[in-house]
Amino acid sequence: MLDPQRLSIHQVTLPPSLATPAFVELLARHRVPATSLWREKTRAHGVAATARLVADHGIALTGYCFAGLIASPDPSEAAAARDDVRRALDEAAQLRAPCVVFVAGGVDARDRDIAAARARVLDGLAELVPHARAVGVRLALEPLHPMICATRSVLSTVKLANDWCDRLGAEDAVGIAVDTYAVWWDPEIGREIARAGARICSFHVSDWLADTQDLRLDRGMPGDGVIDLAGLRRQVEEAGYRGHVEVEIFSQRNWWQRDPDEVVRTIAERAQVAL
Amino acid sequence: MLDPQRLSIHQVTLPPSLATPAFVELLARHRVPATSLWREKTRAHGVAATARLVADHGIALTGYCFAGLIASPDPSEAAAARDDVRRALDEAAQLRAPCVVFVAGGVDARDRDIAAARARVLDGLAELVPHARAVGVRLALEPLHPMICATRSVLSTVKLANDWCDRLGAEDAVGIAVDTYAVWWDPEIGREIARAGARICSFHVSDWLADTQDLRLDRGMPGDGVIDLAGLRRQVEEAGYRGHVEVEIFSQRNWWQRDPDEVVRTIAERAQVAL
Repeated sequence: MLDPQRLSIHQVTLPPSLATPAFVELLARHRVPATSLWREKTRAHGVAATARLVADHGIALTGYCFAGLIASPDPSEAAAARDDVRRALDEAAQLRAPCVVFVAGGVDARDRDIAAARARVLDGLAELVPHARAVGVRLALEPLHPMICATRSVLSTVKLANDWCDRLGAEDAVGIAVDTYAVWWDPEIGREIARAGARICSFHVSDWLADTQDLRLDRGMPGDGVIDLAGLRRQVEEAGYRGHVEVEIFSQRNWWQRDPDEVVRTIAERAQVAL
Repeated sequence: MLDPQRLSIHQVTLPPSLATPAFVELLARHRVPATSLWREKTRAHGVAATARLVADHGIALTGYCFAGLIASPDPSEAAAARDDVRRALDEAAQLRAPCVVFVAGGVDARDRDIAAARARVLDGLAELVPHARAVGVRLALEPLHPMICATRSVLSTVKLANDWCDRLGAEDAVGIAVDTYAVWWDPEIGREIARAGARICSFHVSDWLADTQDLRLDRGMPGDGVIDLAGLRRQVEEAGYRGHVEVEIFSQRNWWQRDPDEVVRTIAERAQVAL
């Protein structure tokens, strides 16, 4: 049973047609205390206007999602991508979000050497640390599911995120986002969550549907799938995490088709039984 | 450049409509020296008849695919599944296949504890070892991609396969099948292939398409995707593997729609440039 004050609902969970003002009002109406904002929508509404909107409604931010994709083997492409991450950090500071969710970037057909892609991302992160530190926003390294390694993220495990954090030596500026959907299958997950400890700055929750039909947009509502969500939550809390539990469901065929009030009501109910 | 004598083409790579006799004649016509047979088709044609067919055409078997799915939390279901694996081992012996590809089984909605599912599979394997030893056929533990962990296999990494082999202590009866499609994303893969060493009894090859559209049936022809196939082959060979390179492509939208001769010709060409 999750304390309702610890619930956060990620903006992407609601139908894409729902604009930011209507989304923030929806959360306030249901007394959901926190959210993680989707960067594209925030920029569409305006960063300053969005910052005022969430402040006026008393909604806390648990994250700003996302920036990264810095794995390119082309140096000028990679530099431009890093500049964009710096802008995202600035935006997050303006929004008073504690972290920017960092998505590494995938493998490039121009260079199939995945170890080299990982090395480029780690080098790029080292260059971003000073800016994150300067604006007081953490980069939340988010391991993503191996099935989107080619297109989105060569950071595929919490172990690799921990290894990178060890190398970066910047615990004040770099943390780890643990997403149940991305990590539940990992035989090493218990050990690596314990190792992550205070690095865990974000805990994202959705369920894995047994009949999953899409590699990105078919996540399940907590309780509808096969992940032991309560078990994973216990592990991050045993590792010291005391922050919000952020429900983040990309669901093109189901929840994005539903009435927004129904989606939020369902999440609040499931938080009492499935988390 | 792969020595053509080391090429094996898995039966599932050809369109599902192609019956076993036509498939074996196709391989012989193109002088492909080896194959791995799909169990369902072998049983449809008859095990004894298939054994005669491959022997008459001088085709070697590199595997028999597949058996397993022993993860059920219901003891009688799990026992029935183990009996079926024993039958598959008997069939493989009759076919003179060196190994049965072992697919662990997924997570059951009746018991979301994935660690418990893994423990059940390991216990079940221990019960199967005597039969594998008696018939002289190895169980080739095949780690499958984490994206099919829920439905097909809680054995998700080569590290876990190595851990299980350590626990089983039955190197004569249990090996590991390394499939590029399942393992290419793994940050630990180099280390774990080296650790596997002589356990590697099968090397399966297909490519990861950047625009993959299905969780099981959208594998790519070597050279069409982002996997460093030559690099992975070098790693298994440095670990001591000297067996066949088995091309195994489940491709509903592309290669299963093509003329069988074109599929085999393309594989033979790609073996010279992409493996």
